[in-house]
Amino acid sequence: MHGMAWTLAALIVALGVYVWAALKVGQARGKYKVAAPATTGSPEFERILRAQQNTVEQMVLFLPLLALACLLWNDMAAGIYGFVWSAGRILYIETYARAAEKRSAGFLLSGGLSMGVLVAILITFLLRHVTG
Amino acid sequence: MHGMAWTLAALIVALGVYVWAALKVGQARGKYKVAAPATTGSPEFERILRAQQNTVEQMVLFLPLLALACLLWNDMAAGIYGFVWSAGRILYIETYARAAEKRSAGFLLSGGLSMGVLVAILITFLLRHVTG
Amino acid sequence: MHGMAWTLAALIVALGVYVWAALKVGQARGKYKVAAPATTGSPEFERILRAQQNTVEQMVLFLPLLALACLLWNDMAAGIYGFVWSAGRILYIETYARAAEKRSAGFLLSGGLSMGVLVAILITFLLRHVTG
Repeated sequence: MHGMAWTLAALIVALGVYVWAALKVGQARGKYKVAAPATTGSPEFERILRAQQNTVEQMVLFLPLLALACLLWNDMAAGIYGFVWSAGRILYIETYARAAEKRSAGFLLSGGLSMGVLVAILITFLLRHVTG
Repeated sequence: MHGMAWTLAALIVALGVYVWAALKVGQARGKYKVAAPATTGSPEFERILRAQQNTVEQMVLFLPLLALACLLWNDMAAGIYGFVWSAGRILYIETYARAAEKRSAGFLLSGGLSMGVLVAILITFLLRHVTG
Repeated sequence: MHGMAWTLAALIVALGVYVWAALKVGQARGKYKVAAPATTGSPEFERILRAQQNTVEQMVLFLPLLALACLLWNDMAAGIYGFVWSAGRILYIETYARAAEKRSAGFLLSGGLSMGVLVAILITFLLRHVTG
């Protein structure tokens, strides 16, 4: 387990960001008076909801990529990916809540980063299985 | 694999609950006449859909926590977490279908439980890496 | 890692399909003029969005099943499951974008396949723990 400490730390932090995004939606339901099961009715609420929904989607990509990064690269590389991803997600959620147009930087640092990691993982995998 | 029997059993049961929640949405589309791709139009359908959407979100948190519980605690602890989570999810989905206000107990036993497990996993991780 | 080559290859391909589905939604936002955070307003956009949302849901089922198939069966069985699933998903997304009624074949090859794999995994697990 010691060889996975960075990966596990980054995973736990990412799960914390994930829970925080969900708690923000619950809070926004009260603040903007959008009772469940409604998902529309207030642009402020809708932006907070979409930021969290996007975080769910991105998490589904992030989790296997984190495991692949730890397996094919190493523990620290996976950890760095994870920490940057979490920082990017926090930025995304905070800026999206203010205005939809402001969410690009946070997206690049999390979703964009994941796309780059996926391409790099693919190249690593191909090199390893083509060259030997 | 024998050292993971409880965890795997709990995982398979949770995936069964997940599929069941999705099948309920398909059934509700017919019953309440909400043809895809629409997601609104009937409050009964919307509650069943939201219960399933919330199950997707909670599953994304549950799966890595189940793995962490098996890795940092032990197989049986992970299994107990998983079985209680599945029972809580069934309760959540069944009560949400009846009325949005009734879903709290089922949520606490699944989503609330996961938040507690996340905090406990964090503490376990910190203790192990601070004390050595 | 060599004993997991098929599983990893299938996982990387599935993650590629997942990213492609998300990129299609972003593209469709521009094409059908549905600015974030809105999720309705154009039937074409809604079908592309629902296809991607369904892919998120199916991915959450697929990822643990792929791991279980590799663990309880073997690397190549998991790989075959993964490649067929990805092909089914591409078919689902492409046909759903054209008309909601056309999505059944692609769904059977991905979501339907996963349900069959879940039942087969359950039987494998029970046989192994009842007989041995």
